[in-house]
Amino acid sequence: MNLIILKENLKKGLDIIERITGKNLTLPILNNVLISVEKNLLKLSTTDLEVGMNYWVLVKTNEKGEITVPAKLILSLINSLPNEQITLEGKNQILHVKCDNYKVKINGQSPDDFPIIPKIETKDFTEINSDPFSKGMAQVVDFSSISQTKPEISGIFFNLEKNVLKVVATDSFRLAEKTIQFKENIKQPVSFIVPQRTIRELINITSDKEEKLKMYLSSNQVLFELPFPDADNPQIQLISRLIEGKYPNYQEIIPKQYETEVRLSRDELINQIKTTSLFSGKTNEIKIKVNAKKNKMELFAQTSELGENKSEISVKVKGKDTETSFNFKFLLDGLMNIKSDEVIFGINGIEGPAVLKPVGDISYLYIVMPIKNN
Amino acid sequence: MNLIILKENLKKGLDIIERITGKNLTLPILNNVLISVEKNLLKLSTTDLEVGMNYWVLVKTNEKGEITVPAKLILSLINSLPNEQITLEGKNQILHVKCDNYKVKINGQSPDDFPIIPKIETKDFTEINSDPFSKGMAQVVDFSSISQTKPEISGIFFNLEKNVLKVVATDSFRLAEKTIQFKENIKQPVSFIVPQRTIRELINITSDKEEKLKMYLSSNQVLFELPFPDADNPQIQLISRLIEGKYPNYQEIIPKQYETEVRLSRDELINQIKTTSLFSGKTNEIKIKVNAKKNKMELFAQTSELGENKSEISVKVKGKDTETSFNFKFLLDGLMNIKSDEVIFGINGIEGPAVLKPVGDISYLYIVMPIKNN
Repeated sequence: MNLIILKENLKKGLDIIERITGKNLTLPILNNVLISVEKNLLKLSTTDLEVGMNYWVLVKTNEKGEITVPAKLILSLINSLPNEQITLEGKNQILHVKCDNYKVKINGQSPDDFPIIPKIETKDFTEINSDPFSKGMAQVVDFSSISQTKPEISGIFFNLEKNVLKVVATDSFRLAEKTIQFKENIKQPVSFIVPQRTIRELINITSDKEEKLKMYLSSNQVLFELPFPDADNPQIQLISRLIEGKYPNYQEIIPKQYETEVRLSRDELINQIKTTSLFSGKTNEIKIKVNAKKNKMELFAQTSELGENKSEISVKVKGKDTETSFNFKFLLDGLMNIKSDEVIFGINGIEGPAVLKPVGDISYLYIVMPIKNN
Repeated sequence: MNLIILKENLKKGLDIIERITGKNLTLPILNNVLISVEKNLLKLSTTDLEVGMNYWVLVKTNEKGEITVPAKLILSLINSLPNEQITLEGKNQILHVKCDNYKVKINGQSPDDFPIIPKIETKDFTEINSDPFSKGMAQVVDFSSISQTKPEISGIFFNLEKNVLKVVATDSFRLAEKTIQFKENIKQPVSFIVPQRTIRELINITSDKEEKLKMYLSSNQVLFELPFPDADNPQIQLISRLIEGKYPNYQEIIPKQYETEVRLSRDELINQIKTTSLFSGKTNEIKIKVNAKKNKMELFAQTSELGENKSEISVKVKGKDTETSFNFKFLLDGLMNIKSDEVIFGINGIEGPAVLKPVGDISYLYIVMPIKNN
């Protein structure tokens, strides 16, 4: 291998694919990036055996070759080099990186030891606009369970039917559902569960991009593919295993109506929750009191050690008075993913699931369970 | 106590004095701020028994009173309140904080349990412009020793003589000295050692301020005082114990001349050290090779595991060739505190102390010991 590459192009690719690597001590080659070159394309590949990534950079070379070197080291090196053009030369499993004033040798490992990143056999794909997809994912990704006792809720649930994709995450205390529309109908309804890690990487590669994202599905894997800007051949591929198991029938717990429906300013609610939470103590508990007649909502928290806070917001109430306790962090998490000025806060007594949703946008729903006090 | 205060003014004071408090479990009242009010002045006080602070805010009240509440809690609360005006009311060791829509009660402790912040008896002081003083402190403060085996070098050495203040810090691997000029001569030469912690707080309160800082000295304490803008009465006081012991005679190790004197671009040197350091391994060692004839300096680092880097800078050399090893972190630390475009790097063979200093500014000096290789 012997080629000249623009620092900026190499850096962009390494920035993205390096995220998959870690500090794997049992299988150190997983900390490496596989650099291969063929027909004017340089390909960067990384994998942690659950998620794999490929990234292509255009280069001018007729050579063929491959080498694997530590991903974080080469990223740090490329970041620190001052020059625009960099020469890469692979020889005897050593990568020589050269530019004005700098001569670097990075010790590599044999590409034969690098795990094969699986390919997906199907040629059928679903096409999605990357920008709304990325933003929609970001509104749910944080809410999947971190516990491994129920692996099926440790991932993000995808449900495709007709011209709609629903993505769902829950940790059994709260649940978020986002609906994303397609232009054309999907051939066949399908649902599957993607690891949270995969979705985080997917958000990273699709955010601020206006491209067509292709999704290829097999029985136990999914491949997401982004083309080069204004082209059709792939620039980035993210391939991930799917989580086995049946996702809970979450539709059942979505309340169809609310005993108390409160409409209020999102920012004011966030501010008052933050202030009140200073007095919520270790349980994170704050009490929400709604007075339908006065169109007022009161937030209250108290700990014997610190003191108490009581604050009040003017709201619009439908339904009856209530006094329900919530974990303030769960309320804030939901509100942070709602972008509208006003929100609907639907409360169903001291035990029923409550709902936070934006006013004027039916595509997002956040459900949170109250804290039960005996 | 019952008064109205502007949020902004209270916040500014709490931001500064809260830094002294921590999470003291053995003496929890040290986590508190003492709020006292008398004659249109609200006074905020904190202490960790080594450093104490007072901060005054102008208010309109004829009342007298005092109360002590957790400093971090009241700071977080004031930060989160949306209103401009806040009512503070102290009653039965509870501080009531009120504004539109918010009613807060913070549980306090008896002011009688709050440690007395010592006063300094002397009326003699030295006056310094806060801005150059603050910037000068910042150039040395990081280099005092963290080891407690030699307490005298765990602090910053102050040496005042005629119209000059020298501040010095060392951890015995490197040393920084900054010279700050006064307009008028000091009555009597004096030297003392101030804890690093005190200097960090002093930098915080003096940075970006163009005030006259007053320094009062007693046998075992020092008081720094800043006035209200365009006034003479104190707004901030920082009082600290001094470190006992004799500071090492550091002047002895400052080299008067260099076997090899290299003049070069600061930014280029920083970049090349950063790149080279990627291959320095656990010892942080990089080799500096100077070729006087070619006016070149070469940086080199190598580890058997990762590989190696060799880079070259065009420099101006006086004196002889050398090949000396340094801890790259120590070199970077010094260079980060030098602001000039060009630096002088004075090397004294493989064992002698080396010097980094700005070109065109004789007020700063950074000395670093080489790594000895047997």
